[in-house]
Amino acid sequence: MLIVQKYGGTSVGDLDRIQNVANRVAKTVQEGHQVVVVVSAMSGETNKLIAYAEHYTSTPARDEVDMLLSSGERVTAALLSIALNAMGYKALSMSGRAAGIVTDAVHTKARIEHIDPSGMRSAIDEGKIVVIAGFQGVNESGRVTTLGRGGSDLSAVAVAGALQADLCEIYTDVDGVYTTDPRIEPKAKKIDRISYDEMLELASLGAKVLQNRSVELAKKLNVNLVTRSSFSDAEGTLITKEENIMEQPLVSGIALDKNQARISMRGVADRPGIASDIFGALASANVNVDMIIQTVGQDGTTNLGFTVPKTELGDAKAVTDRFIEKNDISAAECDDSICKVSIVGVGMKSHTGVAAKAFKTMASENINIMMISTSEIKISMVIQEKYAELAVRSLHGAYRLDQ
Amino acid sequence: MLIVQKYGGTSVGDLDRIQNVANRVAKTVQEGHQVVVVVSAMSGETNKLIAYAEHYTSTPARDEVDMLLSSGERVTAALLSIALNAMGYKALSMSGRAAGIVTDAVHTKARIEHIDPSGMRSAIDEGKIVVIAGFQGVNESGRVTTLGRGGSDLSAVAVAGALQADLCEIYTDVDGVYTTDPRIEPKAKKIDRISYDEMLELASLGAKVLQNRSVELAKKLNVNLVTRSSFSDAEGTLITKEENIMEQPLVSGIALDKNQARISMRGVADRPGIASDIFGALASANVNVDMIIQTVGQDGTTNLGFTVPKTELGDAKAVTDRFIEKNDISAAECDDSICKVSIVGVGMKSHTGVAAKAFKTMASENINIMMISTSEIKISMVIQEKYAELAVRSLHGAYRLDQ
Repeated sequence: MLIVQKYGGTSVGDLDRIQNVANRVAKTVQEGHQVVVVVSAMSGETNKLIAYAEHYTSTPARDEVDMLLSSGERVTAALLSIALNAMGYKALSMSGRAAGIVTDAVHTKARIEHIDPSGMRSAIDEGKIVVIAGFQGVNESGRVTTLGRGGSDLSAVAVAGALQADLCEIYTDVDGVYTTDPRIEPKAKKIDRISYDEMLELASLGAKVLQNRSVELAKKLNVNLVTRSSFSDAEGTLITKEENIMEQPLVSGIALDKNQARISMRGVADRPGIASDIFGALASANVNVDMIIQTVGQDGTTNLGFTVPKTELGDAKAVTDRFIEKNDISAAECDDSICKVSIVGVGMKSHTGVAAKAFKTMASENINIMMISTSEIKISMVIQEKYAELAVRSLHGAYRLDQ
Repeated sequence: MLIVQKYGGTSVGDLDRIQNVANRVAKTVQEGHQVVVVVSAMSGETNKLIAYAEHYTSTPARDEVDMLLSSGERVTAALLSIALNAMGYKALSMSGRAAGIVTDAVHTKARIEHIDPSGMRSAIDEGKIVVIAGFQGVNESGRVTTLGRGGSDLSAVAVAGALQADLCEIYTDVDGVYTTDPRIEPKAKKIDRISYDEMLELASLGAKVLQNRSVELAKKLNVNLVTRSSFSDAEGTLITKEENIMEQPLVSGIALDKNQARISMRGVADRPGIASDIFGALASANVNVDMIIQTVGQDGTTNLGFTVPKTELGDAKAVTDRFIEKNDISAAECDDSICKVSIVGVGMKSHTGVAAKAFKTMASENINIMMISTSEIKISMVIQEKYAELAVRSLHGAYRLDQ
């Protein structure tokens, strides 16, 4: 198999850990695989360089920040290659440029546009282990760019796609994706296989193993993604196409998002376009509205409730207050003591009764459901924050995820 | 004027010193000049990275060492450009690759083969300050190379040549080139102008301001080289073509080399080719023979004396001992308590009496001259090491270098 392995900052945090990574790579080669490695900067290195830049200004030139930061991954790539060569393996480090990674020109937040894998391919064909500096590419005019947060994961997925690798393994300090947060429910189980869409829902709902950008790219490029730990031999979780998962469970996991707040607007004027005005204004203020619920109020007016990230509550309130001044709504109340609990599973597409079981479970625990939203593979409920852990544990048990 | 300025590791040793360099560059721009800057890695950085590599093996893969080390200069270049941009100047950092520096493929000791200055040129034409990561280039296949010791000086000289710059300023922590070592003769004076050839002689004789590779390249490319301090406003020393120096002094400086030892061979067999055999064997043993003197001995045999660097004395003795075993010579004696004092000056080409004055000065101090060698612009004398400082001071006064 051709396997792309990505090791993050913690996994290459010091010289001994880089040796540990070299041992893992060597083991994979000895098992008969071809390996391409993507590495991050040693942990702390990127922050150190950013602090250097901010010694001069709080707004350093972005293209120069990319020149600065891209050195961190180059150092790790060279050191890992040196370690592998010292062990008798043929390894070759490559910058983002050498790996053929071409991005747009948005410095510090570039997007990969295409990859020319010929350089990597010929090194692989020569029997070499290719070690790529992650997080970086070059724009069309040849200037170094970086990919922003989670950039090395993106590098790995994109490289795996360009090389049509059999597997892209993302190594972190956790074993994989769990049915729910094990700190809340110790009976949580590691998931062996999960579909891209489920993973996207779980990630956006607070499970922080992988960034959505990487999962989306993996889905787009049809890359089999594995997330596993560089500190253990545990198998990890495979994120793949739905079709590749033989026995689809009804529900894959329970996600909890505590970074939610709610605004309830009462007495919303009953005129066409009012909702569009309000949510248009919120969008203009860069407020990310998540769930929306509308109920009929008194005197022909309606009530509108919506949720936003807690950090954007102040901005959202400022927008709604403008509509109060215009008499478009009569009142807007904030509530930041709520949370969102979600049940995710592709299996629920073809099964009825999944939602009913969720509502019944909440009822049996006397938890009031304030808002509900559903999609094909997800049921989300807004409840009071104080019930968060109880709700997660109850749902985890109700769907038998501990078995 | 178009000025290339090179700042070494000490000059960019920390963030405040990089700010100091930015101020100097800005001042030069304000004076109406176009500036290209070449920087080294922050002092200590390269050694740190080498230590990292040697954590894995004492013989790390050389191409990976280049990948590793080249990051140091990139960081400095980006930081200096960030500092300049923060001051309101348009600056742009460039790696060796972006600057168009192409080398041979000898990793860690590459030689510059050619420079394509178009990238630098268009940035300059856009009114930008170009900041180049020194010490590095790329080979024909695009892989990063480094230029070895003194590499950033070489980058600066080569870039100045490719851009046909008016001046190449090498900033270090000393003011320039002195008539002799001021620690030996406090009356030593800074030299305003000196020819390439004189500088080469002084450098090879122990004055360590510039490496000979850089001076040789400056001579070849006809680059006006200035060595000056980044910690003062002193003018520095201009190293240039002989024709550019109006008033040629008879003698420019006195150099002292204490890293010399002598081997005296007695009873050398009087047969054709014997000298060739001995010095050929020394060359094969990588011994650098400097001065050679031959005198007629007794019984038709000759005596041969030669000097070598002190560090190579052991190797040299091993070679001569082999000739004693073969009865080609009767004895070889080592003397490591000698030194070489040299008088350098292009003016002596056209003046007689320079050598006579040297010998007379030595005689007046009762210093015995053990060996003499002369070239068009240099007179070297081997004397006992204990007279080294006395000889330098006497000669410095005799040629009125303190005036």
